[in-house]
Amino acid sequence: MRFFIALLTGLFLATAPVAAQDPLPSWRQTGTKERILTFINQVTSPKSRFFVPREDRIAVFDNDGTLLLEQPIYVEVLQVIDRLRSIALSQPSLRDVQPYKAALDNDIAAITAMGSPALIDLVAKTNAGMSPDEFRSAVEAWFKTTRHPRFGKPLDQLTYQPMVELIRLLKNRGFKVYIVTGSGVEFVRAFSQKAYGIPPENVIGSTGKLSVTRNGNTLNLVREPHIDRINDGPGKVIGISETIGKRPILAFGNSDGDYEMLQWTTEGTGARLGAFVHHDDAKREYHYDRNSSVGRLNRGLDDAPGRHWLIISMEKDWKRIFP
Amino acid sequence: MRFFIALLTGLFLATAPVAAQDPLPSWRQTGTKERILTFINQVTSPKSRFFVPREDRIAVFDNDGTLLLEQPIYVEVLQVIDRLRSIALSQPSLRDVQPYKAALDNDIAAITAMGSPALIDLVAKTNAGMSPDEFRSAVEAWFKTTRHPRFGKPLDQLTYQPMVELIRLLKNRGFKVYIVTGSGVEFVRAFSQKAYGIPPENVIGSTGKLSVTRNGNTLNLVREPHIDRINDGPGKVIGISETIGKRPILAFGNSDGDYEMLQWTTEGTGARLGAFVHHDDAKREYHYDRNSSVGRLNRGLDDAPGRHWLIISMEKDWKRIFP
Repeated sequence: MRFFIALLTGLFLATAPVAAQDPLPSWRQTGTKERILTFINQVTSPKSRFFVPREDRIAVFDNDGTLLLEQPIYVEVLQVIDRLRSIALSQPSLRDVQPYKAALDNDIAAITAMGSPALIDLVAKTNAGMSPDEFRSAVEAWFKTTRHPRFGKPLDQLTYQPMVELIRLLKNRGFKVYIVTGSGVEFVRAFSQKAYGIPPENVIGSTGKLSVTRNGNTLNLVREPHIDRINDGPGKVIGISETIGKRPILAFGNSDGDYEMLQWTTEGTGARLGAFVHHDDAKREYHYDRNSSVGRLNRGLDDAPGRHWLIISMEKDWKRIFP
Repeated sequence: MRFFIALLTGLFLATAPVAAQDPLPSWRQTGTKERILTFINQVTSPKSRFFVPREDRIAVFDNDGTLLLEQPIYVEVLQVIDRLRSIALSQPSLRDVQPYKAALDNDIAAITAMGSPALIDLVAKTNAGMSPDEFRSAVEAWFKTTRHPRFGKPLDQLTYQPMVELIRLLKNRGFKVYIVTGSGVEFVRAFSQKAYGIPPENVIGSTGKLSVTRNGNTLNLVREPHIDRINDGPGKVIGISETIGKRPILAFGNSDGDYEMLQWTTEGTGARLGAFVHHDDAKREYHYDRNSSVGRLNRGLDDAPGRHWLIISMEKDWKRIFP
């Protein structure tokens, strides 16, 4: 009997610290954290009038600028610049041709100035011909050799620690957590499990055309140099509908490209939470919003109060930025 | 202490019957069942040299003819015929125009003779203008009022009980189970949870174009009358790659439209299982294969032995067909 009591006590000791522990230690107590925790409690407590059954607890997160550093430019574009550079080095005739010249000069401003459609086209073209698996291996290898110009760390390690904690908490409370990104789906799948604990099948992103080819008796999948679907703005709503088939109850983004995703999420019935990460911390990260060519947040800032969306201040709400 | 022993005994009694229970009671002991169970044990036993970690245990199933009755024609086409009929009844000028006339005459042979591309086009056109949610509700309502011409039961209840048991077993053993169907993704999502315990986000199917429209300040998703992606044949491999981003380790189908999905699955390294359900039971279900216009299985029958794919005989391997 003594052993049995010891067993029970052991069980109690094993579970008690978990309940007492702060699930979001990198968030300051500024009101934002409390509002997030209140929402999670409301939708997960069976007695709450806002209770949501487990199967409908869908949470969606933008990637670049919401979970991961996106300055001086989206990580995927840095990979493309490196690809352009290595192509130019092997084909000298391209060295004075744009965008290869800009890549050789590491002229990120010139690359950014090309604009989104041209950039997305470049992403598709520079990584064509590989299978999705080969591409993912190439991206994994690239992350190992690349460092951020300002922080000197591998780019897939410059995740936002407060958001990683939030994802973990949501999963513990029965949410299915998806990344819904404008970046290429295979690019983000290359690091989503390691960086956030989000498996490949929970990443929705822009897609390039794939083709199935036959090598003798064996099938191969090959990336074609053409964009299939751009998962940005209203495209994120379409991506969510096609892949999940349910309206999320929580959506976090950081730019106007996430506006429709937040709108779609919070226009559903019942308790909903929409939030923008506001990059207002020049000291520890970057300060940009209305006039930035990367991750512009303009309309979102204007409309957030009226739509009851949270604005997360990186400077005030977050104790720590990176892991 | 006595209480503790009682507790342990209670735990033992509570778990023992589960272990002893046959997880596939509707399968006869013909060798097929044993081969399926051996595969599941191999990939889920940590000490097995074929062990596959939980996150890579992806299983994919075709829907029509593999999990659900597909005769006299795919269930989705029966819904389209009913839509055509109700359109024709409200627009008398269409009554002598094909395919409305065939629908009014319930001439399934004439509809089938249109061929797959025309049928898929019809599916998109007859259900356009609704939101995905409205469409799903319409499909749910349709199932409630429709009965199978031969079996007299609701069409979403004519699932194959042995396959429902297999899906349950796979989920219990840590597999993520997906439906990969040539039918429209929203159509199958309308009943997948109830019929098989497979949630909407685990259904990959053909998709129609969606558009995002604004009604005042509110977003709406609308089904356009155009096909986006046909999830059949090689398209199933592309759908799996885009949505899951992993190669499955188990694939079950019943027609040549599933050939590439089985091939892609079983060409991976390690233990793999591919299988065709063979409709060879005219008495309890239907007998069709090489010459059928619905669910044709020809190349698959020829190549199955060489590729070590199982052929499941509905007549010999299944004790029961329907729940």
